[in-house]
Amino acid sequence: MNISRYIPAIDWLKTYKKSDFHADLIASVIVTVMLIPQSLAYAMLAGLSPEVGLYASILPLVAYALFGSSRTLAVGPVAVVSMMTGAAAMEFAAPGTAEYTGIVILLAGTSGLFLLGMGILKLGFLANLLSHPVISGFISASAIIIAAGQLKHLLGINAGGHNLLELLNALYENLPNSNPATLILGIFSIGALVTFRRYMPRYLQKLGLSQASSQLLSKASPVLVVILATLSVMYLELYENDVKVVGIVPNGLPALSLPSWHIETLSELLPSIVLISIVGFVESVSVAQSFAAKRRQSINPNQELIGLGAANISSAISAGFPVTGGFSRSVVSFDAGARTPMTGIFTALFILLTLSYLTDAFYYLPNTVLAATIIVSVVQLIDIKNFLSVWGYSKHDAASMMATFIVVLLMSVEAGIVTGVGLSILLFLWHTSHPHIAVVGKVPGTEHFRNIERFDVETHPSIVTVRIDENLFFANARVLEDRVNYLVAHQGEIKHVILMCTAVNLIDSSALESIEMIHSRLQSAGIKMHLSEIKGPVMDRLKSTSFIQHLSGSIFLTQHQAVENLLEYEAKC
Amino acid sequence: MNISRYIPAIDWLKTYKKSDFHADLIASVIVTVMLIPQSLAYAMLAGLSPEVGLYASILPLVAYALFGSSRTLAVGPVAVVSMMTGAAAMEFAAPGTAEYTGIVILLAGTSGLFLLGMGILKLGFLANLLSHPVISGFISASAIIIAAGQLKHLLGINAGGHNLLELLNALYENLPNSNPATLILGIFSIGALVTFRRYMPRYLQKLGLSQASSQLLSKASPVLVVILATLSVMYLELYENDVKVVGIVPNGLPALSLPSWHIETLSELLPSIVLISIVGFVESVSVAQSFAAKRRQSINPNQELIGLGAANISSAISAGFPVTGGFSRSVVSFDAGARTPMTGIFTALFILLTLSYLTDAFYYLPNTVLAATIIVSVVQLIDIKNFLSVWGYSKHDAASMMATFIVVLLMSVEAGIVTGVGLSILLFLWHTSHPHIAVVGKVPGTEHFRNIERFDVETHPSIVTVRIDENLFFANARVLEDRVNYLVAHQGEIKHVILMCTAVNLIDSSALESIEMIHSRLQSAGIKMHLSEIKGPVMDRLKSTSFIQHLSGSIFLTQHQAVENLLEYEAKC
Repeated sequence: MNISRYIPAIDWLKTYKKSDFHADLIASVIVTVMLIPQSLAYAMLAGLSPEVGLYASILPLVAYALFGSSRTLAVGPVAVVSMMTGAAAMEFAAPGTAEYTGIVILLAGTSGLFLLGMGILKLGFLANLLSHPVISGFISASAIIIAAGQLKHLLGINAGGHNLLELLNALYENLPNSNPATLILGIFSIGALVTFRRYMPRYLQKLGLSQASSQLLSKASPVLVVILATLSVMYLELYENDVKVVGIVPNGLPALSLPSWHIETLSELLPSIVLISIVGFVESVSVAQSFAAKRRQSINPNQELIGLGAANISSAISAGFPVTGGFSRSVVSFDAGARTPMTGIFTALFILLTLSYLTDAFYYLPNTVLAATIIVSVVQLIDIKNFLSVWGYSKHDAASMMATFIVVLLMSVEAGIVTGVGLSILLFLWHTSHPHIAVVGKVPGTEHFRNIERFDVETHPSIVTVRIDENLFFANARVLEDRVNYLVAHQGEIKHVILMCTAVNLIDSSALESIEMIHSRLQSAGIKMHLSEIKGPVMDRLKSTSFIQHLSGSIFLTQHQAVENLLEYEAKC
Repeated sequence: MNISRYIPAIDWLKTYKKSDFHADLIASVIVTVMLIPQSLAYAMLAGLSPEVGLYASILPLVAYALFGSSRTLAVGPVAVVSMMTGAAAMEFAAPGTAEYTGIVILLAGTSGLFLLGMGILKLGFLANLLSHPVISGFISASAIIIAAGQLKHLLGINAGGHNLLELLNALYENLPNSNPATLILGIFSIGALVTFRRYMPRYLQKLGLSQASSQLLSKASPVLVVILATLSVMYLELYENDVKVVGIVPNGLPALSLPSWHIETLSELLPSIVLISIVGFVESVSVAQSFAAKRRQSINPNQELIGLGAANISSAISAGFPVTGGFSRSVVSFDAGARTPMTGIFTALFILLTLSYLTDAFYYLPNTVLAATIIVSVVQLIDIKNFLSVWGYSKHDAASMMATFIVVLLMSVEAGIVTGVGLSILLFLWHTSHPHIAVVGKVPGTEHFRNIERFDVETHPSIVTVRIDENLFFANARVLEDRVNYLVAHQGEIKHVILMCTAVNLIDSSALESIEMIHSRLQSAGIKMHLSEIKGPVMDRLKSTSFIQHLSGSIFLTQHQAVENLLEYEAKC
C-alpha cells in the first residue's frame, strides 16, 4: 500500500527544500494579511462572531495541507459558502445565539463527513452536474444577495430576510434609522477599496516596484483600509456616534470538541449539507484545476474531496464554520510565490498567533468596513459579459443560467441550484431526444459519406444509409423507429438499410429493443438491415445479443465497404 | 387551417365505407363482451362500485374515437391505472364513500386536462424519460401488488394496506375469517380461466373453426367464466353462504356534471395526477405504435395526448375514472378485424345498452370471479425473462429496473417511478461523463482512422489525434481537459493536437469553455490545436464563437485531409 496516495503531503515533504521554506514563508505572510479581514468579514456574513472566522482559518488549513491534492489552493472561509451557511442556520435559530453557533458547527462537521464520504466512494464526478452556466448564474445571484445583505451594516441598521425581496423591504422600512457616521465611514471605505485596487499598482510601480510586486501588494490593500477605518473610529471617537464595532474578541482557540446533534435537525439540514458541500467542492476544484494547469501539475478530484472533507471536519472540531478553497486568496498565494502547501500551515500559525496576541487590535474595527470589503469583493463576481456570450452560443444554456439566477435571487440558493441542475439535465435530455438523423451518400471520388442535404453526394435507389448523430438510449429510442418507418414508406425500391453508427457511443436496452423492432419490421417487408462503423465499446456489448445473432444483413467495419459489398451483391442478383 | 389536424376522425369518416361498417360492428360486439367483465373488475380494483367501470367505458371511447390518432387502440379502464387511481384516492378518503368517488372523478378530470395541456404544448417527448427497463420493472411490481390486493376478494375477507408488506400482513391476520365458498368459487374460476385460455383455441379448431377465429373467441372466455360463476351463485344459492356479489347496479348513465374540487386537495393530488397521466400515456402510446406499425400507419404522440386527454375529461363528466388505451382489448379489436375508430363508438353504444337494460344480470355476479379475472390477467405482466435479458445486456439498465421494481413493491408506485426515472437519468449521465476517448491512427492503405489500442495503425510523433466518443457537455467537460493535459505531458514531441469530432453531436457552453482552456494551454506550450470531422449542426453553432476565430490551427473536413496537410506542413518547416 502506498500511503502517499492517501496523504499527498508525504510526497512534497520528501523533497522539501530550504528555498521552498523561504518562498512559502513570505507567501504565507501576505496571505495572512489578506485572510484576517476576510475571515472576520465572512464570519459576520454567516451571522457569527468575528473570532469564529479566525477559528476556521487555523486547523482547516493544516488539514487541507496534509490531505488535499492541490499545491496552491488557499482554503478558508469564502463568501458564497458563508452566505449559504448563514441562510441554512437561520432556519433553525436566531443569529447570535448559542444554538445558532451549534448549528453552524454541525454544518461544518457534517459537510466534512459528506465530502469525505464522496471522496472515498469516488463520487467526485457528481459535481460535474453543476454546469458552468448554472454555477455562473448562481454565483452572480449570490453576489447580489450578499451585497444587499451587507447594506444593513453599511447603514448601521437591523434588517433581515429570507430572500432578496424581503431583505430589500426590511432595508427600506428601516432606512429612517440609519446611522450617518456609519454610512459615511462605509462609503469612504468602499471608495478607498476601489481606488486602491485601481490606482495602487500603478503608483507602486512609479515608486520603483516591479509590476508583479505592485499587483501583489495592492491585493493586500483591504487590510490598509481596515486599519485606517479602525484608527479613525479610535481617534475620531466615532463609537460615540453609535458606529458599531467588533468589540471584544476572546483570546486563543477554544477547546477542541465534537459538535452536538439531533437526528431530526440533521435530516432537516441534509439538503443544506449536500449543497454547501457540493458548491464548496465545485468552487474549490475549479480554482485548483486552473492553478494546477499553470504549473503542469494535476488535481485528483476525489483526493480534493478528502482534503476538503478533512478541512471541514477540523473546522467543526475547532468551533469553526464551513470552509473551502477560495479564488482570491489562492491567486495571491500563487502570485506571492507559494511553492507547497506548507504555505497553508505557516498561514495557520500566523492566524493562531493573531488570535493569541492581537485580538485587542480588533476592538475598534467597525462592522461597516468589513461590510465594505465584502461588497467590493463580491460585486466583481457578477458576470454579465459571460451571460451575453452564453446567450449568443446556446439559448438552452442561457435559460439554465437565467433560471438559476432568478430562483436564487427570489427564492433561495437551494431552490436555485436544484432548478438550474434539473433544467440543464432536462434540456440536455431534450436535445439528445431530438437527435440529428441524416441520410448520407458518398462524396464522389472519396471514401467519405456525408449528409445528402448538405453535400452533393452519390446514392443508390436500393440502398439507404441512415447516420444517427446521437447516442441511442431511452430518451430517443422511438425517434429512429419513426424515421426508418418513414423512409421505407416513402422510398419504394429500398432493399438495404444501413445504420451508420459513427456517432453512436451507447445503445441502451430501450434502444436495443427499438432496433430489434425496426429489424423485424424491415425483415417482414423483405428489406435487409446492415450496420456500419460501430465503435469498439458498443460492439463489445452488442455481439452477444440475439439481435446480432439473427441480423438479416451484415456488419461492416467501414461505410465504404458496406456500400461496395452491397452494390456487388445486388449486381450478382 | 386544417381542422382534421385537430380532429383526426374527419379524415377516416370521409372515406368510411359500408364494408368498414360491417367489420367495425362485428369487432365491437366482441370487444364489448370482453369489456363488460373487465370494466366491472377494474372498477373494483380501483375501490369503486361496479357501475363506475361501465360509466368509464362509454363517453371516453367516443371522445378518443374523435380525437385520438390511433385507428386500433381500444380505450377504457386498465389494470395498472386503476390500481394507481385507487392508491391515490385512498390517501384522501375511505373506499365506498362519496368523497372517495369524488376524488376519483377529480383525478380523471385533472389528468385529462394535464394530458390535453401536454398535447397542446407538444410535450409528448417527456414520456420518453420512462425507459423500457423502468416501465418493465414498474409493470411487474404493479402486477404483483394488484394480484396480492385481489386475494382478499378471493378469500372473502377485508384486508388493505398501502404497500405489499402491509397488505400481506393484513391478509395473514384476517386469514382465519376467510369464506370457504368464496375461496372455492374463486379457485375454480382461476382454473377455468387458465384452462380456457390454454385449451379452448385447440378445441375450437377441432370443431372446425379457423385458427384465427379460435384464438379470438377464446379471448372472450372470461365472460363465459363470469356467466358460469354467476349462474352457480344463483342456482347453488351460494349467496346464502356469504359469497359476496356485485348486488344492485343502478340503471342508466348518471347526469353529466363537472367534478367538485378544492385547491388544497388538488395540490396534494398533483404528483398522482402527473404519474397517472404519464403512465397511462406511455402504456397507450406503446400499444398504439405497435399496431400502427403493423398496418403501416403512423401515430402522432402529441395527438395521442389530446385524444387521451379528451377521453379522461369525458370520463370525469360522466362520473367515470381514469382510462387509457389497453393492450389486451386492442389486440382483440385488431384481431376481430376492426378497421376504424368507429369500433369504439359502437362499443360505447353497446355498453350504454348494457347499462340501461342488463344491470339486473350482474346482481348475482360474485366479486371473487372478478378478482380471479384480474389475477389471471395481471400475472402475465410479470416479466422475469425480460429482466434476465436486460441484465445480460446492461447492468445499468438492470439496476434501474430492479430499483423501480423494489421501490414500487415496498413503498409506492409514485416513489418507484421517481426512483427509476431518476436513477436511469443519473446512470446515463454517469455513462456520458466517463466518455471513451481514443487516440487514433491511420489504418495503412486506407483513409480510415482507428483506435491505436485496438488496431495496428500508423501514427506520427509530432501529431496526436484524439477522438472523443461522446457529446461534450457539462457532465464530461473536464474529462477531455484532463486527457489532453496528460497526453501532452507524456509525449514530448507533439506539435499538433487534432480533436476528431466524428462522434460529437453537441458541444455545450461548459464544454466550449473547457476546449478554450485546452486551446490556450496548448498555445502557451507552442502546440497547435486542429479540429476534424465536425458535424454540420455542431459547426453551425461553433463558427460564430471567438474560439473558432482565434483557433491556432485549422478545421479539416476529414481526418485524412488533416493528417496529410499537417505532414506536408511539417515537411516544409
